[in-house]
Amino acid sequence: MLLHLSTWPEIATRLEQSKAIVIPIGSMEQHGPNGFIGTDALCPEIIANHAEKSAPDDILVAPTFNVGCAQHHLGFPGSITLRPSTMIASMLDWTNSLVRHGFEKFYWFNGHGGNIATIEAAFSEIHAQRSFDPRGEDNRPGLTLRRVNWWDYKSVETLYKQLYPTGHGMHATASEVSVTYYAYPDHQKSDVEMSPKIAPVGRIGDAVQYRADFPDGRIGSDPTQSNVEDGRKLVEAAAEALLKDIARF
Amino acid sequence: MLLHLSTWPEIATRLEQSKAIVIPIGSMEQHGPNGFIGTDALCPEIIANHAEKSAPDDILVAPTFNVGCAQHHLGFPGSITLRPSTMIASMLDWTNSLVRHGFEKFYWFNGHGGNIATIEAAFSEIHAQRSFDPRGEDNRPGLTLRRVNWWDYKSVETLYKQLYPTGHGMHATASEVSVTYYAYPDHQKSDVEMSPKIAPVGRIGDAVQYRADFPDGRIGSDPTQSNVEDGRKLVEAAAEALLKDIARF
Amino acid sequence: MLLHLSTWPEIATRLEQSKAIVIPIGSMEQHGPNGFIGTDALCPEIIANHAEKSAPDDILVAPTFNVGCAQHHLGFPGSITLRPSTMIASMLDWTNSLVRHGFEKFYWFNGHGGNIATIEAAFSEIHAQRSFDPRGEDNRPGLTLRRVNWWDYKSVETLYKQLYPTGHGMHATASEVSVTYYAYPDHQKSDVEMSPKIAPVGRIGDAVQYRADFPDGRIGSDPTQSNVEDGRKLVEAAAEALLKDIARF
Amino acid sequence: MLLHLSTWPEIATRLEQSKAIVIPIGSMEQHGPNGFIGTDALCPEIIANHAEKSAPDDILVAPTFNVGCAQHHLGFPGSITLRPSTMIASMLDWTNSLVRHGFEKFYWFNGHGGNIATIEAAFSEIHAQRSFDPRGEDNRPGLTLRRVNWWDYKSVETLYKQLYPTGHGMHATASEVSVTYYAYPDHQKSDVEMSPKIAPVGRIGDAVQYRADFPDGRIGSDPTQSNVEDGRKLVEAAAEALLKDIARF
Amino acid sequence: MLLHLSTWPEIATRLEQSKAIVIPIGSMEQHGPNGFIGTDALCPEIIANHAEKSAPDDILVAPTFNVGCAQHHLGFPGSITLRPSTMIASMLDWTNSLVRHGFEKFYWFNGHGGNIATIEAAFSEIHAQRSFDPRGEDNRPGLTLRRVNWWDYKSVETLYKQLYPTGHGMHATASEVSVTYYAYPDHQKSDVEMSPKIAPVGRIGDAVQYRADFPDGRIGSDPTQSNVEDGRKLVEAAAEALLKDIARF
Amino acid sequence: MLLHLSTWPEIATRLEQSKAIVIPIGSMEQHGPNGFIGTDALCPEIIANHAEKSAPDDILVAPTFNVGCAQHHLGFPGSITLRPSTMIASMLDWTNSLVRHGFEKFYWFNGHGGNIATIEAAFSEIHAQRSFDPRGEDNRPGLTLRRVNWWDYKSVETLYKQLYPTGHGMHATASEVSVTYYAYPDHQKSDVEMSPKIAPVGRIGDAVQYRADFPDGRIGSDPTQSNVEDGRKLVEAAAEALLKDIARF
Repeated sequence: MLLHLSTWPEIATRLEQSKAIVIPIGSMEQHGPNGFIGTDALCPEIIANHAEKSAPDDILVAPTFNVGCAQHHLGFPGSITLRPSTMIASMLDWTNSLVRHGFEKFYWFNGHGGNIATIEAAFSEIHAQRSFDPRGEDNRPGLTLRRVNWWDYKSVETLYKQLYPTGHGMHATASEVSVTYYAYPDHQKSDVEMSPKIAPVGRIGDAVQYRADFPDGRIGSDPTQSNVEDGRKLVEAAAEALLKDIARF
Repeated sequence: MLLHLSTWPEIATRLEQSKAIVIPIGSMEQHGPNGFIGTDALCPEIIANHAEKSAPDDILVAPTFNVGCAQHHLGFPGSITLRPSTMIASMLDWTNSLVRHGFEKFYWFNGHGGNIATIEAAFSEIHAQRSFDPRGEDNRPGLTLRRVNWWDYKSVETLYKQLYPTGHGMHATASEVSVTYYAYPDHQKSDVEMSPKIAPVGRIGDAVQYRADFPDGRIGSDPTQSNVEDGRKLVEAAAEALLKDIARF
Repeated sequence: MLLHLSTWPEIATRLEQSKAIVIPIGSMEQHGPNGFIGTDALCPEIIANHAEKSAPDDILVAPTFNVGCAQHHLGFPGSITLRPSTMIASMLDWTNSLVRHGFEKFYWFNGHGGNIATIEAAFSEIHAQRSFDPRGEDNRPGLTLRRVNWWDYKSVETLYKQLYPTGHGMHATASEVSVTYYAYPDHQKSDVEMSPKIAPVGRIGDAVQYRADFPDGRIGSDPTQSNVEDGRKLVEAAAEALLKDIARF
Repeated sequence: MLLHLSTWPEIATRLEQSKAIVIPIGSMEQHGPNGFIGTDALCPEIIANHAEKSAPDDILVAPTFNVGCAQHHLGFPGSITLRPSTMIASMLDWTNSLVRHGFEKFYWFNGHGGNIATIEAAFSEIHAQRSFDPRGEDNRPGLTLRRVNWWDYKSVETLYKQLYPTGHGMHATASEVSVTYYAYPDHQKSDVEMSPKIAPVGRIGDAVQYRADFPDGRIGSDPTQSNVEDGRKLVEAAAEALLKDIARF
Repeated sequence: MLLHLSTWPEIATRLEQSKAIVIPIGSMEQHGPNGFIGTDALCPEIIANHAEKSAPDDILVAPTFNVGCAQHHLGFPGSITLRPSTMIASMLDWTNSLVRHGFEKFYWFNGHGGNIATIEAAFSEIHAQRSFDPRGEDNRPGLTLRRVNWWDYKSVETLYKQLYPTGHGMHATASEVSVTYYAYPDHQKSDVEMSPKIAPVGRIGDAVQYRADFPDGRIGSDPTQSNVEDGRKLVEAAAEALLKDIARF
Repeated sequence: MLLHLSTWPEIATRLEQSKAIVIPIGSMEQHGPNGFIGTDALCPEIIANHAEKSAPDDILVAPTFNVGCAQHHLGFPGSITLRPSTMIASMLDWTNSLVRHGFEKFYWFNGHGGNIATIEAAFSEIHAQRSFDPRGEDNRPGLTLRRVNWWDYKSVETLYKQLYPTGHGMHATASEVSVTYYAYPDHQKSDVEMSPKIAPVGRIGDAVQYRADFPDGRIGSDPTQSNVEDGRKLVEAAAEALLKDIARF
């Protein structure tokens, strides 16, 4: 089920069977010369929607938390960020809303490495509401908060290493661009040239430093390799892994 | 252009022509027995995307700000809210990010009546950054911040009054449900019965009061009238009005 | 009763009969060449005090929340604003304090159009404390939060339209200046000339833009029409309407 | 001049002569069996207004910051408090607004002992905006922030010790009740009996503890001694001292 | 006991006997030409540790809250400050953590005059959690929050006045420098000359003003008098006073 | 140099040579039956101080940021946590203070795995001050923000794997307990028995869950192996690695 395309009575019924929800979470930030600004939000959304389509009863997918931590990309037009403190407050509100309805298991399905720290910090902030209770255990339920990056599933990692033995990279990776091309083939940028072919690697600081060190936005990648067919394989592998993981959740 | 499906060099080019951006903003909240929880986020997104498809060079559409002010709907499963203070902080961050790139005109295209107050409050918070400058004018640019509800365009208002002379309503309206059915026809809930046929009207307070006064979630509406064809008309009318408004912006 | 001129045992007694309180809320901002900076705080205060004087047992009036949302007026000396996030926090604290004592009905009696959005946002923030409760209903009481602008009473609207068929305006209105002249006749500015006689109208943005577009501060008004006698009529009409509204509250 | 009864051009003119402003600041809290809830806000307001009346060109008085730190009084109906963090944010906004216009000297004229800590904390928060500047001195002006309690003027202290050799007290003092009776003689509570005649003294903690230790709200005082004539003397002495202090400011 | 050198089972056992804890709180700020930047944090830490060593069963000492309110010292390299709002939030978190374990009595043992206001403000913020409870008394325990400056013990005051009849001063005092020299004799700066011998006195504002008015950082003191032997006497006197005070707490 | 034992003129001189500072950062939380509550703050402090002692001119060590993210340990008496949002605000204030003096390179030397996420989030929050600048580069300097865990140095990792081939663990590790025993040999808890000898491993959630799953607080470790001699080796290896790393910083 997709939460945003469901009615409230459908969610009420769903809650009788499962207190788990999958929340795609990404970022809105430059992805080099041929990657979409929305790549990191689109990837987990595409994969989760694919999983839902193949097994609608086995998964409930929330709307995508589509803007995350991207301050280091602000040197490139179109990037949008939340400050970590704002992101923590937002995730807290999303969670408290869903807890009101009875949800207890939150699977944040992440598409952006730069989100990891703040997601984990938000988990502590959320848990602190119960941990700070003077009696040691208030009447809030215990919550299971999990973050999973779509590229960390074993099967997906194996696949992208096989597809892109060189130039997979760390930002604007060959695999994430493929995933978005698969979902939005009409928006492919197929004729973009990049130099150097494989982007440099290095440390990430603030927006000024990032733009100076990584002039076209990529880190370590050659996304000219990306294509729809690879994207299909990656989405199928990841969606299958997601469904398996949720079944165990 | 859709920001999330564009590359950063494309946005850089776009900024040379226009400093304006359209941001669909909605809510994730119950919409009665046959409306999607995502209705208020989907409507402005559907309309903006329709406009963009018909005139891609004339409009830049940001990703949807998809969770808004819905505390009064928390009595119904699936509803998600931000506290107004969180929403203000988020809108501030979105704006400051885009201002960094040179954007100066922000057209928040709204799908939820309950968002209006907080959006306007956020505008004051954003403007206060410049208004508080000790010298009277800092080196921030003056910003144009506009909020427009899609149902307020003259042509749209005329249309929905004609389509639904009775039972259009105030929440889970016949028109908004039609708009989402047009975009997601496979998810239509066509056989839902409602009683009373036209929902009651009244005041809105907190979640407990709302659920007691409006037991199935609707206010004043009969959305059993909603259908794909009406949705098409509404979307086309609204998209046309949006493009005209943006041309003048 | 006036809360600030009452003792705590008097308020304790009052609470046995009524859990309602009226809170005048205004702003501290320029009101053109002949209007007081305090106009928007003074108007609801004057009217509420008048009502209280005529029927002290029927109404409990809190001290005035006298600084509100006025960032757009900061181009004019003397204007003072809260950021909306600060105003929300303050209204939350006022409310939580009064809830502690048993108050459940809050009638925010407003004197400033620019406050409306933030007051409504604050209501959501206040309600969210109860709506976010994991059990669906905590042991907080349900609160009735109402905002009423003094100029929106039917009888008042009829009166000011009759008194000022032209040049009533939107900011530094003829009627609000009259109300303050009635209460503070010694402070009248009777010899101020204005040009144009009726001020321009337009959109409101930040402080720099406002000062540029509305050079003497007024919007659409000719407050040279204002006088003590009109003020008396307006105050009496509004006070009567307030008492009737409170009786139904 | 009273800011709230002045026009913006009058304030603009005033700023050419003086960059100083007096802001009465108080609290809304129980003051025992015969003291007004507004006592702490009323006292500095009454004194400042008296000073202004006698020498309108020598002083500019802002509207009263009328709700302060009163959490320990919340056990008594009618008391209203800000959390210190909210009060700091509010004082910051008031100051930043006035700095925008060119004010540089802020004389917070205080009526509540419980405000002292938070006022001083707010001063640090305000100064930190300039002190945190990476260049060591930003383009903000240096601000003079002063807090003065009206009862600390030498002449006032001498007077109240002479008027009330016993039972002046620390909360709901004989002198502050007299000041308010002088200004609002019709609201005097002249027949209230108190037992013990002089209230106990002790430490102040939270609201539950305060109510238990000081059952009628007073600390160390016998305000049955209060009267209009004493109030007149106190107001005149304090107003004179205020004007002298401002002349040196 | 020292909390940071204890195990959790030891603290569990301790809580069966006493719900009190001593928290040294200081600041990290310049202390003139021969005083350590850490002076204000070190003094209460040194004294508390000395007390603990002499009577380990009679006192539980927390780790030092070592950065406080020092914005006015930011003109001098090495000074570190929290904004008061941050300090309040931190003290709230420390307290809520310890309340979770059963602590109810908090003795903040202070080494910095500039902390006093914010510590007191934090106490109000902490108490407000219980005072805001709608039922008048929630299930939080009543807390005893105390702030004591180490130099305010009668015996200590007598001693430093005797040791330093002139030039004790207000900042970078002769006594506090002696206390740190006693604990860290190897770090003494014994050959520093100062001019004037006794530093000037005056008002404290922001960092720019402070540096201009007090060029070497001292206020009213001559810390060239400081020495290890005086430090020993001061530490012993203060530690003894602390233990007595805690026994009564 | 140790910042807290230096004078401000010494720091001023130091800044002429280096703009780098090392800040030990830890946590105050249970460390099993024989580990100190302060372990995570003590370890980086001990190591940094050891490094400083051996090469005082090569390193500047700040006071320890001694309370971090420990909400999951609140089930065990003595643990103290900051909420991540508070920790971010504190780190921001520390940084802004030091930037005021000219520091540009911040080496946060970490002793607690649970801090990693929030430290990284704080870095984004700090950088956002410059990244949000409307002109793309404000007059703040670019900052180098680095986090290093003391146990991640290659030489240290090799050493603890050799010292503790089994039962090193993840929390209350054999190596960290040894480090603190080396520094505080008198506080060793040498006769504590643990069962099972090697603690269980598992996921970390909130405080209630943690205490249920890890009843004595340890995760995966057998710290009965810890001893002073191992601690000496670890401290020496880590201090040497720290100095080398700082030389390259």
